[in-house]
Amino acid sequence: MLRTNTCGELRIEDVSKEVTLCGWVQKSRDLGGMTFIDLRDRYGLTQLVFNLDWDSNLCKQARALGREFVLQITGTVIERENKNKNTPSGDIEIKVSVLTILNSSLTPPFTIEDDTDGGDELRMKYRYLDLRRAMVRKNLELRHRIAIETRNYLDKLNFIEVETPVLIKSTPEGARDFVVPSRMNKNQFYALPQSPQTFKQLLMVSGFDRYYQIVKCFRDEDLRADRQPEFTQIDCEMSFVEQEDILNTFEGLLVYLFKTVKNIDIPKIPRMSYAQAMKHYGNDKPDTRFEMKLIDLNSVCKGKNFNLFNEAELIIGLCATGAAEYTRKQLDELTEWVKRPQIGASGLVYVRYQNDGTLKSSVDKFYSEEDLKKWAEVCDAKKGDLILVLAGNKHEIRKAASELRLELGNRLGLRDKNKFSCLWVVDFPLIEWNEGDPNVLASLSGRWHAKHHPFTSPKKEDLYIINSMISEIREEIIADRPMNYKVQIPRAMAYDIVVNGVEIGGGSIRIHNKDLQGKMFEILGFSKEEAQKQFGFLMNAFEFGAPPHGGIALGFDRLCSMFGGADSIRDFIAFPKNNSGRDVMIDAPSEISAEQLDELEIELKKQP
Amino acid sequence: MLRTNTCGELRIEDVSKEVTLCGWVQKSRDLGGMTFIDLRDRYGLTQLVFNLDWDSNLCKQARALGREFVLQITGTVIERENKNKNTPSGDIEIKVSVLTILNSSLTPPFTIEDDTDGGDELRMKYRYLDLRRAMVRKNLELRHRIAIETRNYLDKLNFIEVETPVLIKSTPEGARDFVVPSRMNKNQFYALPQSPQTFKQLLMVSGFDRYYQIVKCFRDEDLRADRQPEFTQIDCEMSFVEQEDILNTFEGLLVYLFKTVKNIDIPKIPRMSYAQAMKHYGNDKPDTRFEMKLIDLNSVCKGKNFNLFNEAELIIGLCATGAAEYTRKQLDELTEWVKRPQIGASGLVYVRYQNDGTLKSSVDKFYSEEDLKKWAEVCDAKKGDLILVLAGNKHEIRKAASELRLELGNRLGLRDKNKFSCLWVVDFPLIEWNEGDPNVLASLSGRWHAKHHPFTSPKKEDLYIINSMISEIREEIIADRPMNYKVQIPRAMAYDIVVNGVEIGGGSIRIHNKDLQGKMFEILGFSKEEAQKQFGFLMNAFEFGAPPHGGIALGFDRLCSMFGGADSIRDFIAFPKNNSGRDVMIDAPSEISAEQLDELEIELKKQP
Repeated sequence: MLRTNTCGELRIEDVSKEVTLCGWVQKSRDLGGMTFIDLRDRYGLTQLVFNLDWDSNLCKQARALGREFVLQITGTVIERENKNKNTPSGDIEIKVSVLTILNSSLTPPFTIEDDTDGGDELRMKYRYLDLRRAMVRKNLELRHRIAIETRNYLDKLNFIEVETPVLIKSTPEGARDFVVPSRMNKNQFYALPQSPQTFKQLLMVSGFDRYYQIVKCFRDEDLRADRQPEFTQIDCEMSFVEQEDILNTFEGLLVYLFKTVKNIDIPKIPRMSYAQAMKHYGNDKPDTRFEMKLIDLNSVCKGKNFNLFNEAELIIGLCATGAAEYTRKQLDELTEWVKRPQIGASGLVYVRYQNDGTLKSSVDKFYSEEDLKKWAEVCDAKKGDLILVLAGNKHEIRKAASELRLELGNRLGLRDKNKFSCLWVVDFPLIEWNEGDPNVLASLSGRWHAKHHPFTSPKKEDLYIINSMISEIREEIIADRPMNYKVQIPRAMAYDIVVNGVEIGGGSIRIHNKDLQGKMFEILGFSKEEAQKQFGFLMNAFEFGAPPHGGIALGFDRLCSMFGGADSIRDFIAFPKNNSGRDVMIDAPSEISAEQLDELEIELKKQP
Repeated sequence: MLRTNTCGELRIEDVSKEVTLCGWVQKSRDLGGMTFIDLRDRYGLTQLVFNLDWDSNLCKQARALGREFVLQITGTVIERENKNKNTPSGDIEIKVSVLTILNSSLTPPFTIEDDTDGGDELRMKYRYLDLRRAMVRKNLELRHRIAIETRNYLDKLNFIEVETPVLIKSTPEGARDFVVPSRMNKNQFYALPQSPQTFKQLLMVSGFDRYYQIVKCFRDEDLRADRQPEFTQIDCEMSFVEQEDILNTFEGLLVYLFKTVKNIDIPKIPRMSYAQAMKHYGNDKPDTRFEMKLIDLNSVCKGKNFNLFNEAELIIGLCATGAAEYTRKQLDELTEWVKRPQIGASGLVYVRYQNDGTLKSSVDKFYSEEDLKKWAEVCDAKKGDLILVLAGNKHEIRKAASELRLELGNRLGLRDKNKFSCLWVVDFPLIEWNEGDPNVLASLSGRWHAKHHPFTSPKKEDLYIINSMISEIREEIIADRPMNYKVQIPRAMAYDIVVNGVEIGGGSIRIHNKDLQGKMFEILGFSKEEAQKQFGFLMNAFEFGAPPHGGIALGFDRLCSMFGGADSIRDFIAFPKNNSGRDVMIDAPSEISAEQLDELEIELKKQP
């Protein structure tokens, strides 16, 4: 080794030892005849000291060193006069006797500090320098720790990690696949997996009974903020279990990770149905760090002269605790906020429940104080609270109310990054109508779409809905757009784990019966031939003794950023891509040679 | 859970417990009024017993069960009358009271036994059934165990696992890349990594100092036997180290794995130079489980009337201990064996050192017994040994002698799968002349090629050769084919780890200096523009304080098969591809839709 110690480990007990360190020049200061250099490596900072009186040549050499030069130094550990209590190695410094420059450095394009002066784009172009910053490095160390502890937990429970293939078959029923032309099988393509779904189910058919994998997955989406074309999942599957077994096993994983990684004890995680989540939070991933539920005010708001409310399908109240003192300016601003197209409300009604017990609203013209008292009662509002009311179509207004709720949570400081609230959302709808989604092929719109995926099992008590849908499909009496299928969509044995309003993962009990799987494909609009062509191997596997099974996948990037208390996943990925799917550091994707295209027997489409 | 216990854990101590098990019907036997079923899961086998007298309906139901049906049973653990000492659960059986068929099964296309009647192709098509066989399952369990222990070892040494991207940039200087058309960046392609080489070097520039990753890599090769288009590496890199530090660290990993996984103590691993390996074994990955070195017989064979030897560049002797009694028939057969085109020798001379001390050869016409004595001396042959002699051009005849040596090793039982001999081969040539390799683009032939990869550092003492090559390239005086460049090829700080004649991994100290890296690209025939376009990011990174670094990558599939005592890697991969790169189970690669091609703006080349 070129060093005896790291820059993070020397302490007062090491004084008078001769050591050799390697690292980068973090900063350097000349004070009179002395030169001090902070030498940095992954483990910390150690101060080097040079003195013109001790060795003038060496000291002059030290003075010529620039930021980020790579050094190897040998010297003696001495006690510091001015100890730095903020650094673990702050009690000592190294009196350097030998200095070797291992490499020089140009001046970096931004400062290598937590609080850097580099903008996002510059940092990404020079990601190898950005990764030198302690905060980014710590994020990746956290990621490593979570991965190790996840494996420890699952290994102890007899889960076996099995690598599933990356070059698989295109099954574009969900999001778009990335495809890979095959040179050896002309005109054919592999696809990169959106998840190892079918393989983990086959492993269950094989009897592996407890599988996991921390695995890269791929989705060719139009990237929204904080989505990556390649992302990592903790992917798991179990046999001979029921939904509660899976929930308990992975609740156990979260409890274990919170404890070992963050030393936080989290309580038993509550379960909430999708229907309840939508009703109370307008959202299938509610942030339960704070209450402020959506209150149905239809019964107390309708029947007066206020047409906006009378005509609305749903009137929703939110009670912002202690916010009665919001100024008119603040309320106007909130009103503008909900009217933005992203939120889409037509307006915002407020009721101040003032400290003197009176109620003051923006609709005093239509509602008496007696009326408003009733609102306050239904909302469980107290003196000093502010009630905000939205009205409109059920679906849209719930969404708007959910956004307003989260915004109020932010403004009222109810969304503390150091507080964690976990929730299981269960009983998701099995299917949803695809109106046309920019992330799936256009040919798939105007069809039922699996909410989770096509292998998810319906709830037993809703199987009758599946059967009646199938009868109607076979009798061809379903209309073009059966959105409100008898107002009932079958529910699935599907669940999401939500932490602080972020979906960390989800899963389901799978279908393990060929006939039921066939019916699902039928509802999803696959012809028998298509189903056989794309998923024949799975349907065949179900003929040979498939066990009852189910599983879950956790978004590993998201899990890490949640543990790191960050909003963005990008700084928890060593080499992320930007919103156009580009790696700006290596400049990929890029053109390939005509020779490569020729060998693959593909051509770029002529631009018109 | 649908079970209280697994099929592998019940013992005599559990007698009289009521248990519920789930599993597959392995086999079933009717004996008089009794029916016995072996129920199988991942953990073992447990015998179920039914009796017409106890419950005739239940017993009849049991008799109707087919192989591979999935059952859930509840019953009482009882002591077996005829204990089966070959099964851990062989002391007990379950008197079943409740039987639930969780799923039925068609008759599998082959038997689910270690010694199956299924051929390779059938097993791959029904891989999910093949994986039910205990021996295949154990291979994957071994793989999981090796991965876990590898991570434990490296984690303790402060290595951090960092995930590098899978969608990267095509740099087809080595083997062919798989490419991925980008929909969002028209006419551009990602490539799948052949290794995370440049990323791990960038991580060193970032100061991560000890990196590892168990990672999928991809190579679009014409598949030889036992190669896979996607394969897994244990990929590692270290900073502030010299070659010996890396060798010792990963020797430590092997020692640790052999101990924890196989409970074998392996001795200190010797180092051998590439030149020595080629001289003594004719092979850069010698099987050192047995000696039988290649002996240079030029000094004792030349100068007689045997023209074949006189004209040969090199005469090689192999001493097969105790093989003097090989019959004429065996020797004729060996002669035919070396004359096969794969081996390519023109013939084989033998000398029997008979037990009575006389020597008998196939070239008695040309060589006296006195001459042959000298051969025997040089070969260190003893009475009872057989000397086999090959002659020809140095390069070809060493290769042939190496093959013959391995074949003799097999025939003499010297290659025991339960014995392990490890070796570091060091000082590999830095470059080699590319004559035209089916696995690289045709446009790259007739150039120097990096033997390890373009980032490998030359040995310090051979830098002068690099410099004189560069001068000559710049003066354009190097001829078209400088194969015998002053008979000297610069040596690299590159090393392979070889176990039982199989290369398990290799690595090198890397270049960390931009100028030297530029020279390497120049020798490899890159123009400045090409080098900048493909590797500019790395060259730029070297400007900002790159530390001295080096690393290694171990072939994980190969490592697992070696630990499993198998020749083929295929049964250590859950879902392998065949020799045409196809997954015959899912039938991939496959055609994709016109809509997908359109979106990617590519076209299949019209077939003429």
